[in-house]
Amino acid sequence: MMKYKKVASYIRSKIIDGDWFYGMRIPSQRKLANQYNVNRVTIIKSIELLESEGFIYTLKGSGTYVNDYLDESFMLNKWEEMMEWTSRTRSQYTVQLINKLETQKEYIHISKGELGGDDLPHDELKNAMTNVSLYIGNLAFGYNNGYGYIKLRELLADRLKKYNINVTSNNIFITSGALHAIHLLSIGFLSQNTIVFRNTPSYVDSTHIFNILNIRKKDIVYESDKQARAILEKSPSYLNKAFYVEPTFSNPTGNVLSLKSREKILKYSMIHNLPVFEDDIYRDIWFDNEPPLPIKSLDKKGNTIYISSFSKTIAPAIRIGFIVASEKVVEQLGDIRMQIDYGSSILSQMVVYEMLKGGDYDHHIKNVRENLQKKRDYMLSILDKHFSSISTWNIPQGGFFIWLTLNKKINIRKLFIELAEKERVLINPGYIYGSSENTIRLSFAYESYENIEYGLKKLLYYAKEF
Amino acid sequence: MMKYKKVASYIRSKIIDGDWFYGMRIPSQRKLANQYNVNRVTIIKSIELLESEGFIYTLKGSGTYVNDYLDESFMLNKWEEMMEWTSRTRSQYTVQLINKLETQKEYIHISKGELGGDDLPHDELKNAMTNVSLYIGNLAFGYNNGYGYIKLRELLADRLKKYNINVTSNNIFITSGALHAIHLLSIGFLSQNTIVFRNTPSYVDSTHIFNILNIRKKDIVYESDKQARAILEKSPSYLNKAFYVEPTFSNPTGNVLSLKSREKILKYSMIHNLPVFEDDIYRDIWFDNEPPLPIKSLDKKGNTIYISSFSKTIAPAIRIGFIVASEKVVEQLGDIRMQIDYGSSILSQMVVYEMLKGGDYDHHIKNVRENLQKKRDYMLSILDKHFSSISTWNIPQGGFFIWLTLNKKINIRKLFIELAEKERVLINPGYIYGSSENTIRLSFAYESYENIEYGLKKLLYYAKEF
Repeated sequence: MMKYKKVASYIRSKIIDGDWFYGMRIPSQRKLANQYNVNRVTIIKSIELLESEGFIYTLKGSGTYVNDYLDESFMLNKWEEMMEWTSRTRSQYTVQLINKLETQKEYIHISKGELGGDDLPHDELKNAMTNVSLYIGNLAFGYNNGYGYIKLRELLADRLKKYNINVTSNNIFITSGALHAIHLLSIGFLSQNTIVFRNTPSYVDSTHIFNILNIRKKDIVYESDKQARAILEKSPSYLNKAFYVEPTFSNPTGNVLSLKSREKILKYSMIHNLPVFEDDIYRDIWFDNEPPLPIKSLDKKGNTIYISSFSKTIAPAIRIGFIVASEKVVEQLGDIRMQIDYGSSILSQMVVYEMLKGGDYDHHIKNVRENLQKKRDYMLSILDKHFSSISTWNIPQGGFFIWLTLNKKINIRKLFIELAEKERVLINPGYIYGSSENTIRLSFAYESYENIEYGLKKLLYYAKEF
Repeated sequence: MMKYKKVASYIRSKIIDGDWFYGMRIPSQRKLANQYNVNRVTIIKSIELLESEGFIYTLKGSGTYVNDYLDESFMLNKWEEMMEWTSRTRSQYTVQLINKLETQKEYIHISKGELGGDDLPHDELKNAMTNVSLYIGNLAFGYNNGYGYIKLRELLADRLKKYNINVTSNNIFITSGALHAIHLLSIGFLSQNTIVFRNTPSYVDSTHIFNILNIRKKDIVYESDKQARAILEKSPSYLNKAFYVEPTFSNPTGNVLSLKSREKILKYSMIHNLPVFEDDIYRDIWFDNEPPLPIKSLDKKGNTIYISSFSKTIAPAIRIGFIVASEKVVEQLGDIRMQIDYGSSILSQMVVYEMLKGGDYDHHIKNVRENLQKKRDYMLSILDKHFSSISTWNIPQGGFFIWLTLNKKINIRKLFIELAEKERVLINPGYIYGSSENTIRLSFAYESYENIEYGLKKLLYYAKEF
């Protein structure tokens, strides 16, 4: 222990033991230096530390006194000091702000990545809960092996057959959503200083899911053979590497990778022997045509781990997602789970199972597709009418988002803040996804038609102003 | 990239592109060496790598051929290889085995740390689910800020007043159980190479909750002033430090720290300015007298973070626990949550809220206390009758466990395995908690009276045999 810290803890101990009491003037620096057999600089440093902690206080020209260390307004809260130890784990400031404002009802959310209240399956959830409550007396409510509710795992395995993913319940691992799936996989399979290749703008750049475990990210464009090869070949072989891909209606751009691009990713994965995280949570929300098959269904080697979730299709707060992987990987995930959180809520798992089993989910998602397609068309019609002169955008074939690029390079940070503060309209600026500054993620999923129109008009006004 | 790996990826690419096809004999080593401008040793290493991956195969005396790389039986599954990157995250083998066997109904579980089926609140859960389903249409099912269901947080803050813990909902953070609470706190506040002081034998030693994030543990005995001071003073000051304490009916020993010991821990925490994790999940399960107040209620500084859970009192699979901390700490946890799993299941939170609100929880826990006290007494009566000559044990004043120490030092590993394999009786050997080898954790919480007797008789027989 450094000397001044040691002396500080001797003094703290005197104060806490009551030998030195509130209001008492502490001995002179010279006396303390003699007593603890250190020099005066050390004593000065100790006193500074104790003062910063609130154990003692100095009156100018009078001396240093023992404080009432029980007074809450003094002394540091150690936990708050400790935040600095791991300050790398704070989200981007903009993301923190968005997380906060997104929970507030008085805002117009033309960027929010979740279904609006009218599209939530309230009746289906109610039915499912009633069904579950009927057999709740017979259910195992203990710690399980962390893999998840067996009936749900069986049903999911069965449902994946339609994508040519031929697995059994032993290959299905239930998580508390897709982000949680990535967290578990990162802990279980990625070492520190792994490089995860992903294509920006990307959802993973808006969260510190990889950074939190010291895992690095690197940009790659899968569609360009030449660029992809160059990047893969030049990255040092002593580092571990993996791909993160969101191939279907990706967040935030709404892009869909073609079958050919999916095959290419798989090819790179095989040539360079790199594993793939395939995050496919928007698959069920397609409009005109079903999207190409998952990479997982093309992959006969098990290099691809498939991730899905019911957050976008049932409700985020239910916190149920799943991973499809080899049995060995599932076993490893189960073991990680027993070291972290012992599995997902059995109630949520049973409710999702009930919704899937009876066909309620399929019926609901059909409605969602129809409603969202109409809302997409509505948002596009407003963009066509008013935004053509100042911006460009894509026409998403599914998912929640339209990716808007303003022609003029403006201060999007300021646009975002002013829209939120002055108009209570929330957009997601593209830079939180690692995009250049003149892009915006819009969502047609959450708001009513009326509010979509209102929000876009406000956006238009400010975007022109800037 | 190392040369042989680079050559291997060129060759993989030829095979995957179809230039080299199944059954084709590959060029000679000399030719390849010329072609890629490397020496033959490099070529040999490349070929070995590709062979281990299943891309090519060698027929002795004939040559090396391109394999059918789509055949699943060849080529490594990269994810499985990657487990080795993070092999430090595997649980102890014994813990893995226990986790597996604990889910199997044909075993007699005289060690299991959860309520038995008869003590689970089936009716109360059913009522709660029915109540929740009535207002499900009005509920927010979106992403929240990660802090948890506000009504549950308010209710918990209110209930803590009886322990002199005066907080508001802003100080309550909902988690998916207590283990998950420790995981979140570790990510948010402990840097790598933090030392966590804890008293062994300890629950935290049976899981890799700290190791998984590279956080070190160190033993400390809080009750001994001299020893505690020595350890704290000699640990280097450049390392961050924290205490982990399970003061009430701790797992596995059933110990309760006296009020005086609690005050001492708080004193050390203040003298050395170290934060405290207080894990208090067994508090509600007391028998003869209520346990001393939590350390948190003695702490006016906020150095202590309080952790509790409903896993031991309602059911593990519901996955609801909570943290009590300063608002700044709660905010930091919320931000961590948005990077990891976006919060706990709203359904589980609402069900716990309903159980607490209507008084069902308090009624249930009163029954649990009475039933478990009887089961404790029954287990003790069998121990008194048959185990006195070979062992000693404590008389727990609450919780689930009796901590048995065999007089003779025997091979507990072997005892555990043989009891499980031959008799289907499960005990938890003490060494998984960091204890010396002749200790066993017994639980009176899970099994029926009949099975407790059966299990103990088998244990007696084997313990004498050994």
